[in-house]
Amino acid sequence: MYSSKPVTHARRMLLYRALQCRRKRSSAVAATSNVKVVNDVRHVRGEYGCVTEADVRHFRSLLGEPNVLTGAENVGPYNVDYMKQASGDSGLVLRPKTAEDVSDILKYCNDRSIAVCPQAGNTSVSSGSVALFDEVVLSTERMNNIINFDPVSGVLVCEAGCVLESLMKYVDGHGYMMPLDLGSKGSCQIGGNVSTNAGGIRVIRYGTLQGCVLGLEAVTADGTILDCLNTLRKDNTGYHLKHLFIGSEGTLGIVTKVAILCPNLPKHVNVAFIGLDSYDKVLKLFSIARAEFGETLSSFELLDNTAVTYVESKLHLSCPITNVHPFYVLIELASSQPNVGQHMENVLEKALGDSVISDATTTDQMSSIQKIWKVRETVIEALLKLGYVYSFDISLPLNRFYEIVELTREKLKDVADVKTVCGFGHIGDGNLHLNVVTSQRNEELARMIEPFIYKWTSKCRGSVSAEHGIGLAKTQFLEQTKSKSAIDLMRSLKNSMDPKCILNPYKVIPAVAASDQ
Amino acid sequence: MYSSKPVTHARRMLLYRALQCRRKRSSAVAATSNVKVVNDVRHVRGEYGCVTEADVRHFRSLLGEPNVLTGAENVGPYNVDYMKQASGDSGLVLRPKTAEDVSDILKYCNDRSIAVCPQAGNTSVSSGSVALFDEVVLSTERMNNIINFDPVSGVLVCEAGCVLESLMKYVDGHGYMMPLDLGSKGSCQIGGNVSTNAGGIRVIRYGTLQGCVLGLEAVTADGTILDCLNTLRKDNTGYHLKHLFIGSEGTLGIVTKVAILCPNLPKHVNVAFIGLDSYDKVLKLFSIARAEFGETLSSFELLDNTAVTYVESKLHLSCPITNVHPFYVLIELASSQPNVGQHMENVLEKALGDSVISDATTTDQMSSIQKIWKVRETVIEALLKLGYVYSFDISLPLNRFYEIVELTREKLKDVADVKTVCGFGHIGDGNLHLNVVTSQRNEELARMIEPFIYKWTSKCRGSVSAEHGIGLAKTQFLEQTKSKSAIDLMRSLKNSMDPKCILNPYKVIPAVAASDQ
Repeated sequence: MYSSKPVTHARRMLLYRALQCRRKRSSAVAATSNVKVVNDVRHVRGEYGCVTEADVRHFRSLLGEPNVLTGAENVGPYNVDYMKQASGDSGLVLRPKTAEDVSDILKYCNDRSIAVCPQAGNTSVSSGSVALFDEVVLSTERMNNIINFDPVSGVLVCEAGCVLESLMKYVDGHGYMMPLDLGSKGSCQIGGNVSTNAGGIRVIRYGTLQGCVLGLEAVTADGTILDCLNTLRKDNTGYHLKHLFIGSEGTLGIVTKVAILCPNLPKHVNVAFIGLDSYDKVLKLFSIARAEFGETLSSFELLDNTAVTYVESKLHLSCPITNVHPFYVLIELASSQPNVGQHMENVLEKALGDSVISDATTTDQMSSIQKIWKVRETVIEALLKLGYVYSFDISLPLNRFYEIVELTREKLKDVADVKTVCGFGHIGDGNLHLNVVTSQRNEELARMIEPFIYKWTSKCRGSVSAEHGIGLAKTQFLEQTKSKSAIDLMRSLKNSMDPKCILNPYKVIPAVAASDQ
Repeated sequence: MYSSKPVTHARRMLLYRALQCRRKRSSAVAATSNVKVVNDVRHVRGEYGCVTEADVRHFRSLLGEPNVLTGAENVGPYNVDYMKQASGDSGLVLRPKTAEDVSDILKYCNDRSIAVCPQAGNTSVSSGSVALFDEVVLSTERMNNIINFDPVSGVLVCEAGCVLESLMKYVDGHGYMMPLDLGSKGSCQIGGNVSTNAGGIRVIRYGTLQGCVLGLEAVTADGTILDCLNTLRKDNTGYHLKHLFIGSEGTLGIVTKVAILCPNLPKHVNVAFIGLDSYDKVLKLFSIARAEFGETLSSFELLDNTAVTYVESKLHLSCPITNVHPFYVLIELASSQPNVGQHMENVLEKALGDSVISDATTTDQMSSIQKIWKVRETVIEALLKLGYVYSFDISLPLNRFYEIVELTREKLKDVADVKTVCGFGHIGDGNLHLNVVTSQRNEELARMIEPFIYKWTSKCRGSVSAEHGIGLAKTQFLEQTKSKSAIDLMRSLKNSMDPKCILNPYKVIPAVAASDQ
């Protein structure tokens, strides 16, 4: 979710045409095949019903002609993965307007055993939002109304297809902010954010969506509209069902409405960019920052020198501090209190005197704040200019956080095609983005580094996907993060809630359609 | 969860003997009956296995003689509800030490179809933690080890039987605090807190346990040990299973270990006690407080004049401000920044000038802070000195928050036995504690006011149990808070995860043992 470019129809078409060209060159992708291999995992099309002309007529009568898309030119763009990693062969896109429409579609598809791929902003970097075979794509893009905002409680209720950035602007007008912020905010939709439990740069302050979403409405596989659209902060009546849909990537139901608790906009923001000599000192600074800044700490981000070097050389951005250091930290404080800037300076001055940090610059000017954030936010863009980027999104205990970058560097030091290995990420959340750059995609290398990194992550009780989900891209690594008993229970929930396995098959947990059992 | 008195063995015995006396006087409770009526709901004992001598011998060989309690004198105290509302007829208490013990017990009970009532600190005010018939009580009191605390990340990992107050003291020593604080902290256990998603007085600041619990270990009905003991802030790999156990009151599994994210201890705390003329002005002040104090706001509590009057007259505590006002608000700010006190004074001075508030006093002295909190925390104690207290724990949209107190007062104005109606609660969380005091328990009155209040709550899309859970006491009102589709899904989850319905039967959702279907 790195790009903030909106996915306009024009851009979808460009991506689609680029992919069509790639397809013609590649013999590995057979559009009509019943078998596909994704990241070495062999997927066989489930025994689903095929969409017929009668089905299309039914959907047209239900949704109206313009909201039922067929034909390669219309459907193609919805088959293209945001990262161009995967592509689907769907021949039908449905654009419902209401939860009742979604219910009617799912009821019909469930009866006919037709597989459905829910799609919101289609910004998944784990290929979770495009079809694999000929699943019907259910796009939430027309369900984009804000239903209510309560300026006293800060609770926003809206439909699933609202674009995150438009919600940010809307609540900003009331003195509030959305509790999440992502690179893809210009195109991602809140329903997709909720379905993937999207994180971003301020989880340290506002927590994940599991904590911020007060309620939701979802439609389950058989078309049942599940009303859990609670707008209360406290409600201990029965099972907390909303959590079944937050982060399950559309495999247990399609989120149609959400209620989110928005924090107040901070009045004072101060950002520091800091140079440090070692990772141990980064951890020391994090302890100091948590203890000193407490509730005002809204970001604590790490970049290694390699990452910053490429941002400078490839994007011609300046590092906010001139001397070179092995590590850099970006701290953001956001507060209702006016003296956070002074507090930041006092704390950093002491840390400098105690040799915890080597250099620092601070600012409360919006233009300088944006410049500093740009260095942090454009690392992937810089690396993409260097070559093909293998990007790993892992969670680790903080004391093991940087070790894997060094181990990967060591392991790959004699591999000719490897251009660089670097690490950056959200220290505050224990979320590392580890990157390996090569001149081009190299399957053999992928087969070497993926298991190496994920096994090590598993050994440290880390997570193989901190914020990007499992989608289609990481199903084979789920077992390295989750216990067998947990995966068994997931499968049992899936079978119980979607016995025909029509919802987003092949994703998250290996597909177990009733017919395959 | 109002009393902070620890439930020592001696106290259990006292409660037990008191209950034994009550029983002798009452003909309504037949210890050996297969039918019991609780709050007008008729419960029939499920077709569970009865505990035999052979079973007891088996458990003794498993846990050791002292950890298998039989005989009325030993078992009786575990059959007594904290609020003395309900009593069980269990003949056997098991005290496992490890998750493996719990697993062995459940596997055995599931095979034999023996019902199990999990019990932590037994401080439920919804009768969720005592047996109804002869369920085996599984007490977590011996599972009380702290496993790990990471002073960098603030993540605490401990066993389910740790008493909340002991955890508070432990993390305080490291500069951290527990994210929840309850009246019953001296005896409630963290496993019970998690199983009931316990709230308390600082939810406005730190959110509910759904957001603070990073991971847990639970044992499901068939004895499977489910390892979801994640200690990471971010982990998007598959379904977020922990939420099935947070707030499901032991009906889907028994929590054995938890990992909790602890916030840093605030360095500066300031408390204000404020008098206001109307509820509209309370809402205005809340808007001002959220906007002005932002992240430093850690409590915003309401008391009406009736509540404060009884605290003064029955407990001889002084109201912190001398003039009488229809409403009082307690605001607590907690921050890493030293100037919160000055900020509080500036904001309240302006609110006084703008006639939003009528009077206020503020303090940063711990002894005065404690005195002010005591007025808020002893309302129920004062009302109990007046008579029998019907206490309702409901969540409401803020604009309807106080209306129900006035409506209830109006409805009961001519009922002779009603001594008073008053309201207090956590405005910040939309959680009202509405109280009706009579000279003694009056079933007819209960039948009049409970449906009245819960129907109204339901109409406002509120919750009939904000923080106290459903337990045994409120099963009949679940339908007034949750949609039919939601209850159907709950039931389906229960049937899928505990097909013999051995875990905490009769609680939360009406028991659906396979044999009863």
